[in-house]
Amino acid sequence: MNVEEIISKVLQKVRPTGEERTFVSELMEELKGIAAETIGELGLDVKAHFVGSLAKDTYLAGDHDIDLFLAFPLETPLEELREKGLKLGKAIAERLDSYQLAYAEHPYVRAAYRGVSVDLVPCYDVRDWRDVKTAVDRSILHTEWVNEHLNGRNDEVRLLKRFLKGINAYGSEIYIRGFSGYLSEILVVKYGSFLGVLESTDLMLRQKVIDPGNWLKREPELAMKTLKREVEADRPLVVIDPVDPRRNVAANLSWEKYGRLYFKARTFLKEPSLEFFFPEADGIGSYLRELRERGTHLLTLLFEKPDLIDDVLLPQLEKSAKGLERALAREGFGVLGWDTGYSGRRAFLMLELERIERGRVRIRPGPEFFTERALDFYAKNETVWIEGKRLYTEKKVTENVVDVVLSLLEKNQVPLGKNLREAIRGADVLVDYVPHELKREAYLFLRRERKRIK
Amino acid sequence: MNVEEIISKVLQKVRPTGEERTFVSELMEELKGIAAETIGELGLDVKAHFVGSLAKDTYLAGDHDIDLFLAFPLETPLEELREKGLKLGKAIAERLDSYQLAYAEHPYVRAAYRGVSVDLVPCYDVRDWRDVKTAVDRSILHTEWVNEHLNGRNDEVRLLKRFLKGINAYGSEIYIRGFSGYLSEILVVKYGSFLGVLESTDLMLRQKVIDPGNWLKREPELAMKTLKREVEADRPLVVIDPVDPRRNVAANLSWEKYGRLYFKARTFLKEPSLEFFFPEADGIGSYLRELRERGTHLLTLLFEKPDLIDDVLLPQLEKSAKGLERALAREGFGVLGWDTGYSGRRAFLMLELERIERGRVRIRPGPEFFTERALDFYAKNETVWIEGKRLYTEKKVTENVVDVVLSLLEKNQVPLGKNLREAIRGADVLVDYVPHELKREAYLFLRRERKRIK
Repeated sequence: MNVEEIISKVLQKVRPTGEERTFVSELMEELKGIAAETIGELGLDVKAHFVGSLAKDTYLAGDHDIDLFLAFPLETPLEELREKGLKLGKAIAERLDSYQLAYAEHPYVRAAYRGVSVDLVPCYDVRDWRDVKTAVDRSILHTEWVNEHLNGRNDEVRLLKRFLKGINAYGSEIYIRGFSGYLSEILVVKYGSFLGVLESTDLMLRQKVIDPGNWLKREPELAMKTLKREVEADRPLVVIDPVDPRRNVAANLSWEKYGRLYFKARTFLKEPSLEFFFPEADGIGSYLRELRERGTHLLTLLFEKPDLIDDVLLPQLEKSAKGLERALAREGFGVLGWDTGYSGRRAFLMLELERIERGRVRIRPGPEFFTERALDFYAKNETVWIEGKRLYTEKKVTENVVDVVLSLLEKNQVPLGKNLREAIRGADVLVDYVPHELKREAYLFLRRERKRIK
Repeated sequence: MNVEEIISKVLQKVRPTGEERTFVSELMEELKGIAAETIGELGLDVKAHFVGSLAKDTYLAGDHDIDLFLAFPLETPLEELREKGLKLGKAIAERLDSYQLAYAEHPYVRAAYRGVSVDLVPCYDVRDWRDVKTAVDRSILHTEWVNEHLNGRNDEVRLLKRFLKGINAYGSEIYIRGFSGYLSEILVVKYGSFLGVLESTDLMLRQKVIDPGNWLKREPELAMKTLKREVEADRPLVVIDPVDPRRNVAANLSWEKYGRLYFKARTFLKEPSLEFFFPEADGIGSYLRELRERGTHLLTLLFEKPDLIDDVLLPQLEKSAKGLERALAREGFGVLGWDTGYSGRRAFLMLELERIERGRVRIRPGPEFFTERALDFYAKNETVWIEGKRLYTEKKVTENVVDVVLSLLEKNQVPLGKNLREAIRGADVLVDYVPHELKREAYLFLRRERKRIK
């Protein structure tokens, strides 16, 4: 298949059907009505705006979560906005199927309606960047800007998003640090098309700055300040937000994720294939065979997943894995890599180890030989010698990594994510074995499938 | 056996017999005659002095090496003393059985006569410390001082020396750093007897200073300077030389060797036994069984012993063992201890290792992903991923410690003693096996027999 054929195949899958479009439009109309009615009943001066990929018509087929922003007048005090916004969100959600509270900078309502997730988010009704007061206020401006500038290239955005998902570089969450939807849209506006973006990854990196709002001319002082700050923070890209000269749209983009696009774009253009967009279901291999071939070992800690959102849980899992890596290295167990995640109600830490047993003899220093304590030490230990002024002995030590891990956890010598401490201390510790539901995870981890670019 | 019985048994062994005494006296008479005659023939103004344990009658039975010092007038220029001293030594030695040159601060002659080693050492005929010009000049003064102060306690010195030898704390050589004969004599003079010394090891350490020459009164300034310097150098003891206030007789005594006396004296006084003086021939155990029981491994480098004296060879062997220890630790092989030495014409380094194989997979960093070299790296390696800006790959690495050692030596990555480099680079590298003549060494090393105090 050549590039055109591939793109056409991908579009068949990512472009919403007429049916889906109709369903979504009706849903939005209906929600708009419910919102207006509720606002009226509560006697509020609030405008309801749809934002996000649905409002921009850049959503992927089947992926149509709704973001409904409830915009309060600028003069509303922040406390009042939080309180009334939440009240309004709840009142709207009462008329939908179900809801729960969620937390970002402010609390908001996450409802479900006719099988679709609907976020009801209070914000200020800003006209431009000077009005921005909370992190979410820009969303309305972003939606307007994209709708003004995309000029019908919506499917190009869909292609780019699907490509980024396929190569595991999509998502601006703090635990992902990839490309956001808005950043994808800006890149398509800037480079004209999906292929235009792919062909520009080297140029983009070298130019460093993308300024679609022309802020460097319009607000040189502010824009230069942003540029300087972001360059100093060593970001791969500085994309000055076309709706706010103070912000780098790519501030959360990591070098790793940029590097994935960089290499994958290059290889796609050389040898295009559908696999970049839809990687074949991997994980069919055996993790046990991987372990045998690599001559390494797999240590897995399996524990009850605390009831936390991913934004909180995943960074804490990473912190815990890193803590365990350091603690084990100090104990003489070299760690080649780690992975974390959860499956159903159980979370896991996986570490690949060079070995799972260590030498039986360990040297232990004691007190200086001429002290009171030295006599104790001498009496208590079977073998004693002197180095410098100090007595030493040797001890048979815990040999297996499982005993070492349990002892480290018991003695509180592993830095763990604060909400995970209890759970991890009660973890099952498995060596070279994982339960059925983690077999695929183990295989992907040992092959570094998620992070490798080759 | 009680202490008296033990001491009496030891004395039977260490006190020279009448026969030995007669042999030694005759030998000394004869040598004195030969020396006088040779001095006369060469027309020199030199006095021949016997020094050392023979001259002090503190030698152990069977251990009667002779030190004959050739004392030149103080006004002799140093160059002349060296030249004429060596000439005289050779002329004397020509009349004995055989000789060779040896080197300390000055060259001297080491001869053999009737099965006894005879050192012929040129020195100045000093009257007191103010005259001392070379390191050996004090020996005559030492001999005089001991003979004046020992008051018949010669056997007490023999007991102490034998004890120190038995517990492996005797010998002032730079690679031993134990008690010298002269220091043993001073301690007996100070504490009155062998048992007096043993009972004073704690007191001695706390008082720190021994000043049998009363220099702190007689030459307070000089003696305080010595004291200050030696305390700052953190010596276990400061024994101001009764013949020279500038010198600490215990300057070369290490904390380790002092610690051995400290602990062994204590345990001897509690549970006296002949073993302290004459440890049972150890080394009857199997090093292979030790390895099995300890769960560790023995790495031995065996190579041709360069033709060097112990003073030069042994410190270089130690340096090389330490260098290898550090290099192996960096490579992931934990070293639990090391030993060095030689047997016949072959020298060895032995290291006890936690393991002899290491994991097959090793992470290797590559260039930054957006560089020219990154494309090479990407093309060349089978697995590639990005961390930060950098590409990484994993490699199968040399697994066995032997390959690692050979590769380290080849790449010159082990700091070695400078006269050993060539020899060690051509060493045989053995794992968990030593040739017959090193079996005992291996056993003693693994059991830490030479350094343990319990």
